[in-house]
Amino acid sequence: MKINVLRLDHRQKRDARITTHVCLTARAFGADGVILNGDEDTKLMENVKDVAKRWGGQFKVDYKKNYENLIDEWKNNGGEVVHLTMYGSQVHEVVSDIRKSPKDKLVVVGGSRVPTKVYKEADWNVSVTSQPHSEVSSLAVFLHMLFEGKELDKEFEGGKMKVIPTAEGKRVIINDNEEEKIE
Amino acid sequence: MKINVLRLDHRQKRDARITTHVCLTARAFGADGVILNGDEDTKLMENVKDVAKRWGGQFKVDYKKNYENLIDEWKNNGGEVVHLTMYGSQVHEVVSDIRKSPKDKLVVVGGSRVPTKVYKEADWNVSVTSQPHSEVSSLAVFLHMLFEGKELDKEFEGGKMKVIPTAEGKRVIINDNEEEKIE
Repeated sequence: MKINVLRLDHRQKRDARITTHVCLTARAFGADGVILNGDEDTKLMENVKDVAKRWGGQFKVDYKKNYENLIDEWKNNGGEVVHLTMYGSQVHEVVSDIRKSPKDKLVVVGGSRVPTKVYKEADWNVSVTSQPHSEVSSLAVFLHMLFEGKELDKEFEGGKMKVIPTAEGKRVIINDNEEEKIE
Repeated sequence: MKINVLRLDHRQKRDARITTHVCLTARAFGADGVILNGDEDTKLMENVKDVAKRWGGQFKVDYKKNYENLIDEWKNNGGEVVHLTMYGSQVHEVVSDIRKSPKDKLVVVGGSRVPTKVYKEADWNVSVTSQPHSEVSSLAVFLHMLFEGKELDKEFEGGKMKVIPTAEGKRVIINDNEEEKIE
């Protein structure tokens, strides 16, 4: 099952850091790529691509001006749409159905205002708690539950940087041949 | 077990939205309160308190100029410290030990640069993936794993607003007596 994340209505000035966190969260928690909608923010996209290159894996970063065409195309190609919203069905009620369906998933995150069309087009509107918090945390916990924690062991091949988990300090392998204790 | 979140080194100009998301994530995923360190950002604190009041529960928002004193005091009062860092022990390896210890927990999130002292003072340095992403997603997934998903059913008493999860559209109860379908 391929998982892409669609970030609706990015505003370059206001959202740069949050959208960057959405992109990096998508990558770290096992999505295959992110598609940005709203302002075309080439600097942000280059930053995320640069992280993805240095830290490995095959994460893709794209831009689509028209999200409606993208959703239609995704569904016409046999994919399904999951829209994360605090108003949706509870994640723990629906995540196993979402996982059972082997079709590719487009996971949609807002956006200050999400058009009604997105609620209607989505195969699932899903809430990760029904409280106001963050599209970053919704996406992280949704992917964590979808992958049942397996994303925590995901290997990111081909990166220049790799952390060796350690109880204290920082251990990073650079270039796969030189290990250094930074701190 | 009481859970407080300490947000290190908040910078008012640069971090306002990310820190707001950290605070709201702490609340939505079941922490008892957040303590901000760095710039004293009264506007941000009022915003978070306002959300907490409208949406219910007992979430507390505080500020501490000196995080070192806070950590010392927390430990002297019998509490433990969990520092979330991409360099730490893997969350799925240590979370059950953290859960088993009934002592109150201070969950520390950076901060652009976290002083070595925090790594040393922490009872656990914990990584939620060893990839670069977001303190917001680390905090959300850590709390979700600590509470074993029970936070998803947490009730927030006394709020003015309450969402009724629904497969399509938005249903919100306002004032506990008037239900309206917004969209």
